[in-house]
Amino acid sequence: MYELHFAVPMAGAVLCTFNTRHDAAMVSALLKHSGAKVFLVESHLLDVGRAALKRLADSSAAALPVLLTISDDAESDDYEDLVRNAPARFDIRWPASELDPISLNYTSGTTSRPKGVVYNHRGAYLNTIATVLAYDITAMPTYLWTVPMFHCNGWNLPWGVAMQGGTNICLRHFTAKVIFDSIARHGVTHMGGAPTVLNMIANAPAADRKPLPGPVRVMTGGAPPPPRVLLAVEELGFVVYQIYGLTETYGPATVCTWMPEWDALPAEERARLKARQGFHHIAVQGVDVKNPDTMESVPYDGQTVGEAMFRGNTVMSGYYKDLNATEESMAGGWLHTGDLAVRHPDGYIQLKDRAKDIIISGGENISSIEVESVIFSHPAVLEAAVVARPDDHWGETPCAFVKLKDGASATEAEIISFCRERLPHYMAPKTVVFEDLPKTSTGKTQKFVLREKARAMGSLTKTANSKL
Amino acid sequence: MYELHFAVPMAGAVLCTFNTRHDAAMVSALLKHSGAKVFLVESHLLDVGRAALKRLADSSAAALPVLLTISDDAESDDYEDLVRNAPARFDIRWPASELDPISLNYTSGTTSRPKGVVYNHRGAYLNTIATVLAYDITAMPTYLWTVPMFHCNGWNLPWGVAMQGGTNICLRHFTAKVIFDSIARHGVTHMGGAPTVLNMIANAPAADRKPLPGPVRVMTGGAPPPPRVLLAVEELGFVVYQIYGLTETYGPATVCTWMPEWDALPAEERARLKARQGFHHIAVQGVDVKNPDTMESVPYDGQTVGEAMFRGNTVMSGYYKDLNATEESMAGGWLHTGDLAVRHPDGYIQLKDRAKDIIISGGENISSIEVESVIFSHPAVLEAAVVARPDDHWGETPCAFVKLKDGASATEAEIISFCRERLPHYMAPKTVVFEDLPKTSTGKTQKFVLREKARAMGSLTKTANSKL
Repeated sequence: MYELHFAVPMAGAVLCTFNTRHDAAMVSALLKHSGAKVFLVESHLLDVGRAALKRLADSSAAALPVLLTISDDAESDDYEDLVRNAPARFDIRWPASELDPISLNYTSGTTSRPKGVVYNHRGAYLNTIATVLAYDITAMPTYLWTVPMFHCNGWNLPWGVAMQGGTNICLRHFTAKVIFDSIARHGVTHMGGAPTVLNMIANAPAADRKPLPGPVRVMTGGAPPPPRVLLAVEELGFVVYQIYGLTETYGPATVCTWMPEWDALPAEERARLKARQGFHHIAVQGVDVKNPDTMESVPYDGQTVGEAMFRGNTVMSGYYKDLNATEESMAGGWLHTGDLAVRHPDGYIQLKDRAKDIIISGGENISSIEVESVIFSHPAVLEAAVVARPDDHWGETPCAFVKLKDGASATEAEIISFCRERLPHYMAPKTVVFEDLPKTSTGKTQKFVLREKARAMGSLTKTANSKL
Repeated sequence: MYELHFAVPMAGAVLCTFNTRHDAAMVSALLKHSGAKVFLVESHLLDVGRAALKRLADSSAAALPVLLTISDDAESDDYEDLVRNAPARFDIRWPASELDPISLNYTSGTTSRPKGVVYNHRGAYLNTIATVLAYDITAMPTYLWTVPMFHCNGWNLPWGVAMQGGTNICLRHFTAKVIFDSIARHGVTHMGGAPTVLNMIANAPAADRKPLPGPVRVMTGGAPPPPRVLLAVEELGFVVYQIYGLTETYGPATVCTWMPEWDALPAEERARLKARQGFHHIAVQGVDVKNPDTMESVPYDGQTVGEAMFRGNTVMSGYYKDLNATEESMAGGWLHTGDLAVRHPDGYIQLKDRAKDIIISGGENISSIEVESVIFSHPAVLEAAVVARPDDHWGETPCAFVKLKDGASATEAEIISFCRERLPHYMAPKTVVFEDLPKTSTGKTQKFVLREKARAMGSLTKTANSKL
């Protein structure tokens, strides 16, 4: 997939990479929607690939894409055969316009309505440079791939690491032990990872850890990391860069630029500052926090919640074959992210929640992220996610799903009282469920699954007049 | 001038900065050619500025530009008054097209034919980013200004240092002592400097030196640095980045990318590799070494000399009001640099000489740079420049101008024999003159002055049949 990030655009074609967790139904739907002509499948995913092609043949009269396998076994590797037999000289097919598409990235769509984000050459070039700069990737880095390359083109870093003459350490699967081993063995200088990857590192058993050969810069994004997790990994020698973006912004779009004077602040304060999403990077014209109804910017008060919006070169060309969704997402000339944020007096933005994750209880907005941060700081907690549970009286109440650390214990009452000591009472969860959290392939917690579970619980308040 | 790099483009105007060494005649010619509307002059240059305006008034019926002074004395500072009285809110006048001009940089022209290089917003943006990346300027640098900001817009670093949130240390004049003092006092992380600045550092008396607070990255360019000088400054803790470019390429356009495996090579070999000009940076489409007659690329043999040429986004829009010169310089779709170079087997280019500096003796091309490098390695030599002296028999012979170190001594015969031991005999100078070398304001040796002197000496060979 790394090589294809270069070969496919240089052949004048568009690269479309699929999530390796998709099932045959989704793969078939995306093959059809994308109109893929060539379908490269790693051998361990061939069953899904073949089943998807069969579905496609059954449902469509169009020509099927050519299937080529990529295999660890050189004997049956179509891809390596292709490379071996290619002419030594090849004239690159340059795009006619820098706004021509370079890649198509399917994001949170469904089989009946795939959502394919179109990247163009100009945007990819600029976002690659901006990501490399935001993340202090100097010449000749060694980059550990924990972020999948199928996700926002690996935050543009297949291009970015090559641009800086770097070495790529690729992993098919990883654990904390594999991460520590790879860093020590290869002298890793940079890696990426969702906050759940940071959490995995922070909670690794001592036996799985190895000393770092030098500072390891970690770009984290996808969800705001809890301050406690930030602190824990920095104590191990990782330097965390907090970034924020969407598939629709080619991945990274803001960065929490670190001020040297903050080094002297207490650890808790440093973690609080670093958990903010910061400023737009140098390749996008701007990030703003706006009232989506009036399109007016919120004041720089750290309080007023609005919607984070972007405009500029590194906003997608649009959703493939979906002009309505494209126009809706770009209403008023700004990309609407669906993320709720505030603007601090120093100009840094901070996410409060996904619009759909906010909990509205008794008319008050509760940021699930703020409640999660507090639960995360409980010593027994490994992971936490907070969603809305429907309520006859309050409308919604916060419901926490919590995974405890191995060997640790805590009760529902303890977690609730821990939160009530640290938050306004209305923000503390009223329900705590102890269980493993469902994850996406990029390590994000699947809140829609938890929301379904909370909905199935029904109202906590039994009469409209009871007081909690 | 730093602030004006932002204020002028943001006001929708074009920034045109003059060399502070220009006399009233040249300033008057450039004011006229550029059509400047506002003329900002530092108070210590007011005599030249007023004389230039008087000349302009005498020679032209056009309206004179408005004169505004910039003064160290707040009482009489038009510029600070303007800033103080400006409205608090100002709407940036964005360029209508990214190809609109941002600055006009006069380079080696004459009063009768000024040569004004037009930069556009797109090129300046891209070259700023490429320079920051080529030079490993990570977040929050402290930059020492030894390269004048009027030269190629200070290699784009007024914009680049701001982009990375840096601190600027500005000097009106400098010596080696001032450089060492500034580095120690301000914790300088990056600086620029022509090879003559490196030489000044390498030869600073012990009393003028101070230990560096950390590695100081120095971007050098303008002329290829002699290997001995590279070695000497690296021993002091400077990390040298060898770059190459022209005013016509927004300054930096290639960089000698350092391969980690070269760290293990002997010092002489490292210096030899680092003296090469390398590859094009990420913002220009390409550098090539071509035969200017056929426009064919030279082979990657490190031997065949051709002309270095560029094309891509960071090649100038053109020469202002001079379409003929623009078309001539861009013949065949590539910017012709006038610099002679070879391409090494590893793809790195290396300058051999300016086309006009090459010495042709008995039909052989002699690179003045190669001869200078050898003379520089003589322990008594502080500076050296080699030019052609006309010769009745050989056509030309190499003539060296040498400045010795304080207290050191060497004779003409010693220098010649030192060179003959290290170079083919025909390359060794036949004449050595001991004197101070004339310099431009950016520290380049003014070879045209020396060439005049050598021409005035007449032929060394007295009869057409004599053998030397």
